[in-house]
Amino acid sequence: RRTGVPEVVFAEGKTPEQTLRLLAELRDRAPETPALATRCPQEVLAAAPDAFPGQPVLVDPVARTVTVGDPPAEHGSVSVLTAGTSDLPVARECVAALSAWGVRTRLLDDVGVAGLPRLLEHLADIRDADCVIVVAGMDGALPSVVTGLVPAPVVGVPTSVGYGFADGGRAAAASMLSSCAPGLTVVNIDNGFGAAAHAAKIVRRMHGG
Amino acid sequence: RRTGVPEVVFAEGKTPEQTLRLLAELRDRAPETPALATRCPQEVLAAAPDAFPGQPVLVDPVARTVTVGDPPAEHGSVSVLTAGTSDLPVARECVAALSAWGVRTRLLDDVGVAGLPRLLEHLADIRDADCVIVVAGMDGALPSVVTGLVPAPVVGVPTSVGYGFADGGRAAAASMLSSCAPGLTVVNIDNGFGAAAHAAKIVRRMHGG
Amino acid sequence: RRTGVPEVVFAEGKTPEQTLRLLAELRDRAPETPALATRCPQEVLAAAPDAFPGQPVLVDPVARTVTVGDPPAEHGSVSVLTAGTSDLPVARECVAALSAWGVRTRLLDDVGVAGLPRLLEHLADIRDADCVIVVAGMDGALPSVVTGLVPAPVVGVPTSVGYGFADGGRAAAASMLSSCAPGLTVVNIDNGFGAAAHAAKIVRRMHGG
Amino acid sequence: RRTGVPEVVFAEGKTPEQTLRLLAELRDRAPETPALATRCPQEVLAAAPDAFPGQPVLVDPVARTVTVGDPPAEHGSVSVLTAGTSDLPVARECVAALSAWGVRTRLLDDVGVAGLPRLLEHLADIRDADCVIVVAGMDGALPSVVTGLVPAPVVGVPTSVGYGFADGGRAAAASMLSSCAPGLTVVNIDNGFGAAAHAAKIVRRMHGG
Amino acid sequence: RRTGVPEVVFAEGKTPEQTLRLLAELRDRAPETPALATRCPQEVLAAAPDAFPGQPVLVDPVARTVTVGDPPAEHGSVSVLTAGTSDLPVARECVAALSAWGVRTRLLDDVGVAGLPRLLEHLADIRDADCVIVVAGMDGALPSVVTGLVPAPVVGVPTSVGYGFADGGRAAAASMLSSCAPGLTVVNIDNGFGAAAHAAKIVRRMHGG
Amino acid sequence: RRTGVPEVVFAEGKTPEQTLRLLAELRDRAPETPALATRCPQEVLAAAPDAFPGQPVLVDPVARTVTVGDPPAEHGSVSVLTAGTSDLPVARECVAALSAWGVRTRLLDDVGVAGLPRLLEHLADIRDADCVIVVAGMDGALPSVVTGLVPAPVVGVPTSVGYGFADGGRAAAASMLSSCAPGLTVVNIDNGFGAAAHAAKIVRRMHGG
Amino acid sequence: RRTGVPEVVFAEGKTPEQTLRLLAELRDRAPETPALATRCPQEVLAAAPDAFPGQPVLVDPVARTVTVGDPPAEHGSVSVLTAGTSDLPVARECVAALSAWGVRTRLLDDVGVAGLPRLLEHLADIRDADCVIVVAGMDGALPSVVTGLVPAPVVGVPTSVGYGFADGGRAAAASMLSSCAPGLTVVNIDNGFGAAAHAAKIVRRMHGG
Amino acid sequence: RRTGVPEVVFAEGKTPEQTLRLLAELRDRAPETPALATRCPQEVLAAAPDAFPGQPVLVDPVARTVTVGDPPAEHGSVSVLTAGTSDLPVARECVAALSAWGVRTRLLDDVGVAGLPRLLEHLADIRDADCVIVVAGMDGALPSVVTGLVPAPVVGVPTSVGYGFADGGRAAAASMLSSCAPGLTVVNIDNGFGAAAHAAKIVRRMHGG
Ligand SMILES: Nc1ncnc2c1ncn2[C@@H]1O[C@H](COP(=O)(O)O)[C@@H](O)[C@H]1O
Ligand SMILES: Nc1ncnc2c1ncn2[C@@H]1O[C@H](COP(=O)(O)O)[C@@H](O)[C@H]1O
Ligand SMILES: Nc1ncnc2c1ncn2[C@@H]1O[C@H](COP(=O)(O)O)[C@@H](O)[C@H]1O
Ligand SMILES: Nc1ncnc2c1ncn2[C@@H]1O[C@H](COP(=O)(O)O)[C@@H](O)[C@H]1O
Ligand SMILES: [Mg+2]
Ligand SMILES: [Mg+2]
Ligand SMILES: [Mg+2]
Ligand SMILES: [Mg+2]
Ligand SMILES: [Mg+2]
Ligand SMILES: [Mg+2]
Ligand SMILES: [Mg+2]
Ligand SMILES: [Mg+2]
Repeated sequence: RRTGVPEVVFAEGKTPEQTLRLLAELRDRAPETPALATRCPQEVLAAAPDAFPGQPVLVDPVARTVTVGDPPAEHGSVSVLTAGTSDLPVARECVAALSAWGVRTRLLDDVGVAGLPRLLEHLADIRDADCVIVVAGMDGALPSVVTGLVPAPVVGVPTSVGYGFADGGRAAAASMLSSCAPGLTVVNIDNGFGAAAHAAKIVRRMHGG
Repeated sequence: RRTGVPEVVFAEGKTPEQTLRLLAELRDRAPETPALATRCPQEVLAAAPDAFPGQPVLVDPVARTVTVGDPPAEHGSVSVLTAGTSDLPVARECVAALSAWGVRTRLLDDVGVAGLPRLLEHLADIRDADCVIVVAGMDGALPSVVTGLVPAPVVGVPTSVGYGFADGGRAAAASMLSSCAPGLTVVNIDNGFGAAAHAAKIVRRMHGG
Repeated sequence: RRTGVPEVVFAEGKTPEQTLRLLAELRDRAPETPALATRCPQEVLAAAPDAFPGQPVLVDPVARTVTVGDPPAEHGSVSVLTAGTSDLPVARECVAALSAWGVRTRLLDDVGVAGLPRLLEHLADIRDADCVIVVAGMDGALPSVVTGLVPAPVVGVPTSVGYGFADGGRAAAASMLSSCAPGLTVVNIDNGFGAAAHAAKIVRRMHGG
Repeated sequence: RRTGVPEVVFAEGKTPEQTLRLLAELRDRAPETPALATRCPQEVLAAAPDAFPGQPVLVDPVARTVTVGDPPAEHGSVSVLTAGTSDLPVARECVAALSAWGVRTRLLDDVGVAGLPRLLEHLADIRDADCVIVVAGMDGALPSVVTGLVPAPVVGVPTSVGYGFADGGRAAAASMLSSCAPGLTVVNIDNGFGAAAHAAKIVRRMHGG
Repeated sequence: RRTGVPEVVFAEGKTPEQTLRLLAELRDRAPETPALATRCPQEVLAAAPDAFPGQPVLVDPVARTVTVGDPPAEHGSVSVLTAGTSDLPVARECVAALSAWGVRTRLLDDVGVAGLPRLLEHLADIRDADCVIVVAGMDGALPSVVTGLVPAPVVGVPTSVGYGFADGGRAAAASMLSSCAPGLTVVNIDNGFGAAAHAAKIVRRMHGG
Repeated sequence: RRTGVPEVVFAEGKTPEQTLRLLAELRDRAPETPALATRCPQEVLAAAPDAFPGQPVLVDPVARTVTVGDPPAEHGSVSVLTAGTSDLPVARECVAALSAWGVRTRLLDDVGVAGLPRLLEHLADIRDADCVIVVAGMDGALPSVVTGLVPAPVVGVPTSVGYGFADGGRAAAASMLSSCAPGLTVVNIDNGFGAAAHAAKIVRRMHGG
Repeated sequence: RRTGVPEVVFAEGKTPEQTLRLLAELRDRAPETPALATRCPQEVLAAAPDAFPGQPVLVDPVARTVTVGDPPAEHGSVSVLTAGTSDLPVARECVAALSAWGVRTRLLDDVGVAGLPRLLEHLADIRDADCVIVVAGMDGALPSVVTGLVPAPVVGVPTSVGYGFADGGRAAAASMLSSCAPGLTVVNIDNGFGAAAHAAKIVRRMHGG
Repeated sequence: RRTGVPEVVFAEGKTPEQTLRLLAELRDRAPETPALATRCPQEVLAAAPDAFPGQPVLVDPVARTVTVGDPPAEHGSVSVLTAGTSDLPVARECVAALSAWGVRTRLLDDVGVAGLPRLLEHLADIRDADCVIVVAGMDGALPSVVTGLVPAPVVGVPTSVGYGFADGGRAAAASMLSSCAPGLTVVNIDNGFGAAAHAAKIVRRMHGG
């Protein structure tokens, strides 16, 4: 674990057989952490539970993740927010990865800027996280608002939700990267896993694990 | 006044002589409205007061506008907000045009999303405007937040404030055009005048004038 | 109705069951306005009439909208124009939303700039609207022409009609945003709903409702 | 004259000495046509009249062109239109080149779509040209309108006039290239010379010369 | 025939029924020219011959065009070149339109710059055309080479052939628009019909018809 | 200190007087932290030492920063790397901000991927940082390499160093955002201050302060 | 063999029959080199072995290539590297072309920068190649690293592997083109064949063949 | 000389003192090759001859290069072509680097595709080079034409010559990268030095040195 982030299977563009075989290999090579696959097609999600007899298998069909093995003891605390319900798959990928690595998460869905009062109600819960991950498509405005309100380090995840000028997430990403709120950092569009890896490195630096 | 928006001199790319001559021509042709010039270089701002002896001349060096003649009686009510102080010149161009046409304005500066509480304090003042104009560069998040909070029609003006991914105002514009808050419309980058013209058409439809 | 625009279901990316359930929820929560769903897939359009027994259900297969419930008394007046017949679905989404909110509309199809005389014939009808919405793809030239001819506030809706340099509506949008006709404001590509929301806010400010 | 378009000096990025020497060389090599230089800096425009003693020298400071020598007998007929006065330098470059090659031109300035009646007044004059060249920046809407109104072949010249989404002429060019009016062809941004060359080839095919 | 280019049905995005009905309407309204439909889907190509009993129907499955009615007497002469065989559908659309309007064409396929000798062999045939249309994707280099070799007016048609940096025809278009060969004009990507309309206007100006 | 990041003066686009006055105001309002100004023009750098008599003033002409007041006791540890010496100003802005906030830094200059051995030599020093900031223009490859080698959370700062396809830092940013090394997060081009703010939030969460 | 690179069939956009017929024609015309087809769909890969009875047929389903005929005697030496296993199809197209032309290759898969030690282990093998081809998507960082480590001429092949800011290979290409390692040249995205052609020209210049 | 390309000073963004000091350091560290500086401002070009007393100093004001020291014995042979005279500075930078490294060059200026016969006349001279470098801005068509005509490996150098759609060299680069002529590789815009480094690696592999 040279980098502190365990290897993970990126299932997109792989056959179901390849993904399941790679999961099995990870299981053998690093039995102390669960093996994780992201961006799994329907076939992998369906086949996974039977493919690892006698082992705990967790399938999240919204996140499209498969986790094989028991996570380490829970530690740390990361808040994950979405602007709208369409951003949920990306947020859930984030949660799946952090959970596999034993990081405690709290998910707050649909608190986008078009309905600000809902966000303000939940602010207290977020303030004390080790890291806050904010997932937003379309205008990408939510991470800027949150970064201006909490002391925790914030990572923005632009999503490909939206059409026209949303441009597959480029509008949201550009808005976040140009944020007037200092300290917001950004990962690739729809890259919930990448934000989780950054948060996990922060948590690990604080709490070990 | 076929379209309800009086002609205006766009001084950029014109010599000071051309601009002053065109102002004088407008004055002659349409004496019932003040003549307005926008994007005036320093020379025009300096020379204007002496160029129209015996006439009221208003120079706004921040907006870079010159107004010659008395505006009609005040009517209507438009709120103009900025995200940051660097957006002020565009907001002031907006105010200068509306004032020349007799529309009452209220300017609220530096209420951007990185410091949300300041915006929330002033919300009551904005709610009852005939139209709200929100000027913002960088992340362009403020117009989405405001549109989700007030019943008035809102126009967003992206500004070229920012660097890198702000891309001369394109990030702010794309964020506004992709807004998750329904009803926000957008004008060109730095086009305070265009937003004023739209607002004036709304006001005129309501209050005549 | 904090913002004056009732909530609406955006059906794209939702299952038919989710959309119909959300429509029913809206119906319960806000019985005074019809519940509206936009961007409905074929299944929703087909299932809607039977899903709300005893209630008036309006399905527009061109607009891909479903409206459940009786609209409020008609008030105001908005003109909706298209440059070409391919722009009609976006214009009809616009009309469907305005109708659901009780706003009177007049739809003028296929009056694009390649055949200017047709537009000029209908000009008188447009001049007195509270707001004019102009829907155009490809060159996006029509909103500029109309804004130069009528006193009403004009909103341009770029559409994704066209190919090559039309670039999914970006050419039309850029042309509108760069318009030499002052006062034209713009919404996202294909966002008929957004233009309707802006127009409704204007109408509501004038006529209440 | 393999291609029917005489060589021309593009003065941008050349020293005044280089440009004047190249003009002299062209004069020697092809005495039957005037030698032409485009995009001349102030120094060349000032020095040209004295640099060719005993020869007719025509300097157009708006077009930034220098023509040395007498043009051939006038023939053909090309109309050149501008949307706004800021497009004039490009239109005048066009006229300067055509005049040098003996092609008769008619220049119609400031007939853009924001003031359509002015265009319609002059339509009769344009209809019978061998070719119509339409120069427009910002929204680039004028060439589409004209192509829909006249039987002559039309060439659109986008200009870099405008700001923000006008994007140095890209918005105007994309609008023209996506035109819903069939038969409009387009040259590079600000390339009045290129449009003149195309028109001259058409005229030459019709009238010889 | 205000513009000299007869109306044409653009079948993309229309149902086969709509296209066939519009063809029939054109036939009635303007019996002196054939009715033409471009971008026809397979169903229209298959159904067209039976849909117009007793009338000549020409179907080109490569061009995806349907022509109903006899063309006027042949006149003029336009050369159409392609860089590669993949550009043929666009070139054939061009030929189909010109043929429907009675313009004589000569088609030269696969004479791209990667095999220059083949082009040079055929140069004599091209030189005397009233107009030369050059269709090219990928690098878009052929129109520049041809414009530097022939006296006829040249129109370049970029195609969406290629991948990566070819960018759906944008690379070819940008190369043509930046051509160092004066007089080349350009139409939208894959717009064979548009180039034909320009050429037909040139031919008509020369030969009437 | 709602967000844990003290306010800072962004001097770009401000007059020297404005910047110095704002620094003085910050000093008064928040005497427990030094007041910091970034992107200072030459005049501010020169005038600052005399403008705050009796107070410690730190000027970094490479970073273009001015710091007024004594920083809090040193705590934490952040490594800042540059790919090349031209990236140094951005890295030094980063160091200046962290130093003002009392965060210990280590700066490693010119360890870009074209000379990999130099980087590998210094790896041990970097591994134990609370956060690693990697500043790189041109290809933007260094942050990916470093993220694959160290367990600390890494923030990449793209710079505008380079030309052509480097595109003012967009190539470097896109490469970082597409990194195959999980956990790398990114800030705006040239935004050394933003990376410092994120790192400071991490440090503060770990060590308080 | 005017250019030293034999003709090749690009099967994309061709029917299986066309591709097989063109392969047969190449076989007849140039019997001294194998006939090669790239980007073959499944049908061609399946049908090829039976289509050339009595001739050696090599099918690579990963590269999607078909080679008919015996390659010339092996000569030269080209190393082909991939950053990740998803880049393998492009690398294998490269190997297939070089093998058909008799050039010896060595393929090193999955040595990307996120796991630098693996690359460093194999460095000695690469150093002595006549040319090194480096295939990489996403961040595109590997070719810069390799060019800084070996004396051989290096060609980078960006691939369309990745999402979001990877932008179909544009991020990788821009990173390579902006490389801080001198001497790296680049081909189009996914163009393994093009890199092979360049390498073959180098090898042929050195070793003849 | 790990990579076979000696270090070089990139003078852009450095003070004249820094550049001259770095040249002196290179001279000391690697006395067997001349020290080279590229992109030198006027001050460096003027000061260089006196800065290295007793040493041969070569200044090329067009290339903006300074070479200090005697080059190794001439070997190899590289042809450098330009499309137009404005591309000469980039081509000369290329020649200056190759000359400093002892590689024999032949420079052919202004053989662009708008005047193809000139190119064809000189073809024989180019065919036998170890590598051909083709420098072209605007349409970027020349490298495709040359690659289709010669057996040598070809490197294209796009230049920032042109305006509008030429887009600072992006049009030329995209055309080259999309070339239909197999084997053309490309370097960054205006990067004559990079092309020279690639060519030098090829020459060195063939002839040692
Ligand atoms: N056609 C449309 N285009 C853009 N936004 C829409 C459209 N229809 C509905 N919306 C917005 O989307 C919101 C509902 O989103 P959701 O909660 O995902 O159903 C509505 O309240 C509207 O603000
Ligand atoms: N204003 C212009 N815009 C584009 N191309 C031009 C212009 N003026 C001249 N040219 C072209 O540039 C060529 C001369 O370029 P040069 O050899 O650099 O002087 C002429 O033969 C024309 O083809
Ligand atoms: N170098 C910098 N880059 C980006 N943002 C900065 C920089 N320096 C300061 N800021 C931000 O800009 C804010 C001050 O902006 P202003 O009120 O315009 O002076 C600070 O509170 C920071 O959030
Ligand atoms: N994979 C490939 N990528 C790019 N170009 C290719 C590829 N395979 C073949 N080609 C080129 O395409 C030409 C054949 O094109 P075509 O005549 O359409 O079959 C060949 O001579 C090659 O120059
Ligand atoms: Mg919501
Ligand atoms: Mg502020
Ligand atoms: Mg129509
Ligand atoms: Mg005008
Ligand atoms: Mg071919
Ligand atoms: Mg270095
Ligand atoms: Mg790997
Ligand atoms: Mg030349």
